[in-house]
Amino acid sequence: MHSSIALDGLRVKGERLWGSLMDLAKVGATAKGGVCRLALTELDGRGRDLVVSWARAAGLSVTVDQIGNVFMRRPGRANDRPPVMMGSHVDTQPTGGKFDGNYGVLAGLEVIRTLNDHRIETEAPLEVVAWTNEEGSRFVPVMMGSGVFCDVFPLELALAAKDLQGKSVGDELRNIGYAGPERPGRRPVGAYFEAHIEQGPVLEDHAKVIGVVEAVLGLRWYDCVVTGLESHAGATPMERRKDALQVATKIMQEVVAIAERYPPHGRGTVGFVQVHPNSRNVIPGQVTFSIDLRNVNRELHDAMDADLRAFIRRMQARTGVAIDLREVSYNEPVHFHESCVSAVRRATERLGYSHMPATSGPGHDAVFMARVTPTGMVFIPCKDGISHNEIEHAEPEHVTAGANVLLHAVLERAGVAA
Amino acid sequence: MHSSIALDGLRVKGERLWGSLMDLAKVGATAKGGVCRLALTELDGRGRDLVVSWARAAGLSVTVDQIGNVFMRRPGRANDRPPVMMGSHVDTQPTGGKFDGNYGVLAGLEVIRTLNDHRIETEAPLEVVAWTNEEGSRFVPVMMGSGVFCDVFPLELALAAKDLQGKSVGDELRNIGYAGPERPGRRPVGAYFEAHIEQGPVLEDHAKVIGVVEAVLGLRWYDCVVTGLESHAGATPMERRKDALQVATKIMQEVVAIAERYPPHGRGTVGFVQVHPNSRNVIPGQVTFSIDLRNVNRELHDAMDADLRAFIRRMQARTGVAIDLREVSYNEPVHFHESCVSAVRRATERLGYSHMPATSGPGHDAVFMARVTPTGMVFIPCKDGISHNEIEHAEPEHVTAGANVLLHAVLERAGVAA
Repeated sequence: MHSSIALDGLRVKGERLWGSLMDLAKVGATAKGGVCRLALTELDGRGRDLVVSWARAAGLSVTVDQIGNVFMRRPGRANDRPPVMMGSHVDTQPTGGKFDGNYGVLAGLEVIRTLNDHRIETEAPLEVVAWTNEEGSRFVPVMMGSGVFCDVFPLELALAAKDLQGKSVGDELRNIGYAGPERPGRRPVGAYFEAHIEQGPVLEDHAKVIGVVEAVLGLRWYDCVVTGLESHAGATPMERRKDALQVATKIMQEVVAIAERYPPHGRGTVGFVQVHPNSRNVIPGQVTFSIDLRNVNRELHDAMDADLRAFIRRMQARTGVAIDLREVSYNEPVHFHESCVSAVRRATERLGYSHMPATSGPGHDAVFMARVTPTGMVFIPCKDGISHNEIEHAEPEHVTAGANVLLHAVLERAGVAA
Repeated sequence: MHSSIALDGLRVKGERLWGSLMDLAKVGATAKGGVCRLALTELDGRGRDLVVSWARAAGLSVTVDQIGNVFMRRPGRANDRPPVMMGSHVDTQPTGGKFDGNYGVLAGLEVIRTLNDHRIETEAPLEVVAWTNEEGSRFVPVMMGSGVFCDVFPLELALAAKDLQGKSVGDELRNIGYAGPERPGRRPVGAYFEAHIEQGPVLEDHAKVIGVVEAVLGLRWYDCVVTGLESHAGATPMERRKDALQVATKIMQEVVAIAERYPPHGRGTVGFVQVHPNSRNVIPGQVTFSIDLRNVNRELHDAMDADLRAFIRRMQARTGVAIDLREVSYNEPVHFHESCVSAVRRATERLGYSHMPATSGPGHDAVFMARVTPTGMVFIPCKDGISHNEIEHAEPEHVTAGANVLLHAVLERAGVAA
């Protein structure tokens, strides 16, 4: 049965995967059909326990590292080879959905269950991983578990991070029983594959089932503060004003204009705005706002940054109003390893699913994993492109298709024992 | 000594007036040199008590009405004539200054003290009034006492108004001992004069001592809500966005453009902005903001309103984003009675002060009084045009000059007994 013809016909059990997704979604289920399972809460602990119980039932051995990442291992024939890893995260946003993260972990588990069903042994061992605190809703930095694993930031910094109630990551890991013994990052990885809902509308717009993810947009976050002069809206003639909001709104529009000058992957967003004193009859004295600029190409991304800085210099010179621009975060664009991208593409083609190349706007644990091992991602559509929302939804047939792609890409990479 | 030559030489005692301003400013004094004496607080009660004690010492009879307005009366020779009234308010903003309001009441008291010094009797009686809750910081509506007196809104509505702690105007008036017996508005008034700091920069810019106030800008307040579609800043391509902030910022800039199209008195301000969900990596789904449009000419003011509505219709048609504009407040422009404006102008000219015609941007108790009696205002400069601020400042020589103008305008109106 291990002939290539038999392998080509191998498929996951879609109903079993869907059932596990729905069962896991009961832990922290919200009235509106979503999930609230913030990282390292008691509910996160219960969600992890459920996944681990399924892993043990599937014969996997479970290891937890010091930042709470959970590695669930199925041996291969050549156990000296580094494992092919699949996974994502099971923590959610406060008003999150059933699929974001959870899908990547449970699709990995379904791959294992399918191999068990058919008694297929791989050459390299396989591992399913659930990374700690990808969402960053309760503790920053985001993508914490994979970040520590990949040495992006130190373990001690992550363990000391506190939530708004002053509870630390270290204490909460112990509380839920996931402060493991293994030093993060000591585990070799041969390749990493992450299945995920797209969280955007592009696959749906193009009526494609699978997105072969080639890259993740680079990201620059800035804080911008415009300082004018607070004064009375009735008493101050127009020509005497230093209205911080009027200058700020020009910059806010330029952020979008810059993104539109660098298509197709240029993106520019102002999501956060704070006006001081924010009173109906007072001309704003100060406006603080966020700027988010993204692109997949490093030179274009840098050019967007240069355009923004030049515009701000011109505005400052023209208005005499003080403008402070500070970069607060930078992630460079990530281009996934060609061997993994093509493994996903070949699997999709063999399975006959409609597909297109995809670029991820949001970050994922795969972004950090790409620093330490060849990495690929599989996207499936989500309804109306909506994610981080209780109404997040994916079609069962797409959920199954993505897991089948994951299965075949992983088998190609790990090799099947003769 | 009552010859016209002696009267022409009559001047207030500037040091006495300044001393009273500084003494009253001690009640509720803030560390930064300002005053916090919110309407109907225990501090407001102590401030009122101090003013009333000075009035009694000056021989005035004191009457309080049911909304707490305090009328301090000096009889004339013809007591069947309606009084010439001077005044303003003694409540302040939470971070208010020493001059806003207080100056108008104490300048009136200084006029009385000066007439007492020289034993000058007027034909008509004189009254100094302190109106309740002009600022509106603790209770709305603003200009409450004069509004009830002038029948702009009912007494019962004002008495029922509550602060954020749920305390009512009626209860707080009783607590501080200023729930008087007189039905508001039953008191005849022959004319009303209010001295006030300009609260804007125009007099200072033109190096003039006195502003002869001819009018108060009309005001329209709107709430505007722009509703787009909240989505992920990374995952949503530019052409797929319905970014509420990008539409809102275009309207915010048009508000200023409209004001600049209707000079010299057109004013347009967006002071309040609220973005939802106001998160760095989420495209804003909804933006709520205030719009404030003012002009002194009714037709021009209406044209500004029409321009705003036309622009919003065009934006709605072009972007497909929902825009809701609601007018929440309208005060029509007020043009003061020519007899009172010219009385102020003549007094200023006789006294030899530099002066210019002035238009008030902010509202004042005089706006409501102009509905029931001939009304005039005297403006003096304030430093850098700053008011509603603890650093609010007026020069002693300007404080004296404004009181002298008030004295002579009132004497002209009331007539001096032979």
